[in-house]
Amino acid sequence: MSKKLTKRSENYSKWYNELVVKADLAENSSVRGCMVIKPYGYAIWEKIQQELDLKFKETGHYNAYFPLFVPKSLFEAEEKNAEGFAKECAVVTHYRLKNDEKNPGKLKVDENSKLDEELIVRPTSEAIIWRTYKNWIQSYRDLPILLNQWANVVRWEMRTRLFLRTAEFLWQEGHTAHATKKEALDETKLIVDLYANFVENFMGISVLSGLKSESEKFAGAEETYCIESLMQDGKALQAGTSHFLGQNFAKAFDVKFADEDGKLDHVWATSWGVSTRLMGALIMSHGDDNGLVLPPKLAPYQIVIVPIFKSEDELNEISEYIKPLLSKIRNNGFSVKFDNRLNFKPGYKFNEHEIKGVPIRITVGQRDLEQKTLEIFRRDKMIKKNINLSEVYNEIEFLIVDIQNELLKKSQKFMNDNTNIANNYQEFKKMIEEGGFVLAHWDGTSESEEKIKKETKATIRTIPFEKNDSGKCIISGRKSECRVYFARSY
Amino acid sequence: MSKKLTKRSENYSKWYNELVVKADLAENSSVRGCMVIKPYGYAIWEKIQQELDLKFKETGHYNAYFPLFVPKSLFEAEEKNAEGFAKECAVVTHYRLKNDEKNPGKLKVDENSKLDEELIVRPTSEAIIWRTYKNWIQSYRDLPILLNQWANVVRWEMRTRLFLRTAEFLWQEGHTAHATKKEALDETKLIVDLYANFVENFMGISVLSGLKSESEKFAGAEETYCIESLMQDGKALQAGTSHFLGQNFAKAFDVKFADEDGKLDHVWATSWGVSTRLMGALIMSHGDDNGLVLPPKLAPYQIVIVPIFKSEDELNEISEYIKPLLSKIRNNGFSVKFDNRLNFKPGYKFNEHEIKGVPIRITVGQRDLEQKTLEIFRRDKMIKKNINLSEVYNEIEFLIVDIQNELLKKSQKFMNDNTNIANNYQEFKKMIEEGGFVLAHWDGTSESEEKIKKETKATIRTIPFEKNDSGKCIISGRKSECRVYFARSY
Repeated sequence: MSKKLTKRSENYSKWYNELVVKADLAENSSVRGCMVIKPYGYAIWEKIQQELDLKFKETGHYNAYFPLFVPKSLFEAEEKNAEGFAKECAVVTHYRLKNDEKNPGKLKVDENSKLDEELIVRPTSEAIIWRTYKNWIQSYRDLPILLNQWANVVRWEMRTRLFLRTAEFLWQEGHTAHATKKEALDETKLIVDLYANFVENFMGISVLSGLKSESEKFAGAEETYCIESLMQDGKALQAGTSHFLGQNFAKAFDVKFADEDGKLDHVWATSWGVSTRLMGALIMSHGDDNGLVLPPKLAPYQIVIVPIFKSEDELNEISEYIKPLLSKIRNNGFSVKFDNRLNFKPGYKFNEHEIKGVPIRITVGQRDLEQKTLEIFRRDKMIKKNINLSEVYNEIEFLIVDIQNELLKKSQKFMNDNTNIANNYQEFKKMIEEGGFVLAHWDGTSESEEKIKKETKATIRTIPFEKNDSGKCIISGRKSECRVYFARSY
Repeated sequence: MSKKLTKRSENYSKWYNELVVKADLAENSSVRGCMVIKPYGYAIWEKIQQELDLKFKETGHYNAYFPLFVPKSLFEAEEKNAEGFAKECAVVTHYRLKNDEKNPGKLKVDENSKLDEELIVRPTSEAIIWRTYKNWIQSYRDLPILLNQWANVVRWEMRTRLFLRTAEFLWQEGHTAHATKKEALDETKLIVDLYANFVENFMGISVLSGLKSESEKFAGAEETYCIESLMQDGKALQAGTSHFLGQNFAKAFDVKFADEDGKLDHVWATSWGVSTRLMGALIMSHGDDNGLVLPPKLAPYQIVIVPIFKSEDELNEISEYIKPLLSKIRNNGFSVKFDNRLNFKPGYKFNEHEIKGVPIRITVGQRDLEQKTLEIFRRDKMIKKNINLSEVYNEIEFLIVDIQNELLKKSQKFMNDNTNIANNYQEFKKMIEEGGFVLAHWDGTSESEEKIKKETKATIRTIPFEKNDSGKCIISGRKSECRVYFARSY
């Protein structure tokens, strides 16, 4: 933990890459594009999972598990979806290795084990799931089906980056089936709202939510709703999506249901997901030049206590001194780590916990024992103060709430400060260059969208759910019914 | 839920296959050998996961995540391990599909996307993990590493069966690294004890624990410890394994550490896992001719309340009547489902909850409202009785504990009743034919083991940790230092 991080202002991208590794979150593996999620990073992911899982269950969803592999014939059934993912599919073609006679001790693929039909490692599971739903759905009584799965998926990305874009990543994918279009649309909205609520109130990250344009929506969807957040370098990051799939998959897999009058119709569908990419959003939203900054709700341990001692006797005295405090913290459901490692110096520990973003640090030295005091440090604002032992628990309770709130407020302020309204293309280009969201009029065509993207590298991040204003498209001058959010993005 | 199950006595194997599907636990998918775990089955798996995860963390382990793919060159590094799994590996050879010009709308593998090095879909993760540990371990200060991952793995089995043997399955795999042989051996034992404790006290299934023979141990291990349970048809099922890997993987991947004196040595290792196979053990241990029987600790809902009503008014009255009971049950941390579905008759509901093994069923009809009574039914013993409303909560508390205990007692009794001691080969063959475990002397050679297997289909399930008795091998007549457990197995 000795070396300093690159400063964000020097090289934001380098800062990110270094931070992910130095904070022990993840690292590249010996498999191209695949990451190892290290224990500290995985513990944060588990917090994300637990909370989302609870929210899914509270809203009537159940977990299930579907196969990792999708036979090619199923994969290609929904053509747009297949087309969208075909270029990034890991393909299993054989099921056996054998000894390589020419290289003793080495193995080679056994050509006799070639599969009749190739298997695609799931890039997303609509195909395999809708093939399954076909057997489950006959009548309206079988609907709705509200399932989610926690799984790994593979998309063969050429340029990868830890958490943000990896060949294999972890995610949850919800797949629901409904009797009516309205129900499916309501579900799509319910989930995007659930995501927005979670990312704001649990992760402390301000988000916009809205619709994707035709060119940005999910392959195979009728409509994609999304949440978008703004990173500190002014680039947007898509943090979650919820898709209204219409009857596309039901038609591709011939899934019909009989309504109360016995009339047959295709089933309506949604799918939705968030992934380990959220870890990237977390790092880039809150991190600073000293490392990660964790909102208390996501911290593997919320409080760390670092004793300052010269001998084991002194350590024992400190251990006794903080014992009642430790119990009180734990009994009240907060998580605390007493960092009594002998092999590491306080300075090293401070640095480690700072870079790992532990929300609250408490330091106890010999003088504190005499004076009945402690030093308490809040990571988000890098502020420390001395406090009486008798007051520290109340201070902790306050900080746990306050740090969580302050991080969100800061994120909201950052998004507000970096969202500008452009009234013409000139302004637009200048604002995009400066970073952040730019609200501007757009005529609704892919043509104008493409032109803007080509010239400015900005894409439409969301189209607001509620029309805000009418006017003229910044590039075509044609009529626009709403200002939409543009930004450069991850 | 209308059709009856095949009776166990008629065809145990058919009973099992039907039960898995009828209890809504899992089904075959359109991918050869891969299953769909349905919501009810997955909810049981989640209970298994939660409890094990807690136990792992309590014993100092952390979760992490390693890649799904293993490059062939890593896979083959530990030769015995590679040899053991080579014949059942799904192999990824390409990373892209393209349009099939001859078949519009269809896709084919893009031959230009052939990988330089094939990727194996992990059948187990020692190779990829030890390649990673190589970077993490320099000195004794970096040890021990105590990690676990929850993951999917793929072993291309030719004959598959839901939960018991599937091409893809879910599991946890622990991988630990230690400075000394003793520490690694202690870890191996800690985990097999943890598994035994979990399977007995949480799943209510009696197990034996001990060592595997040379021919049955994990490919790449020095020693394999295991837990073995006995199914109702008299066949054994391996429910979990914990491997002492010695320095095999450290040598294969050149992982050394400097001890306190700066001396370099290879690191010692363990690995251990349980899988969705535990679901098979659960079904086959407790299930009866009416369906699944769940121990309360594993039941997605422990109590179901079925109202008997002719009109919605009557249903409303019953709902009011049981409202305080429902609250009390929930407030005390038990899970309860009020099955107020209108479209299904009570008989259908009874059948469904019976086949799904819900531990406690409560029935409320009109007469109960007048008499302030209820009917309460315990699934394990299929006994119902009428009880005063005021007494029902205490009865529930009693049953939750009692059903859990009774299932384990029954399982223990079954194992005891079906464990016999054979003093000669004649007796042995007769006992094996009758089913159950047979304790018999064995000379410790693979030759004798193989001969017994060939002639009787029985294998050595475990060698006890503590020597029990010395004598003469039943087949060779040579000296035997211990009686070992034989059985036919899944």
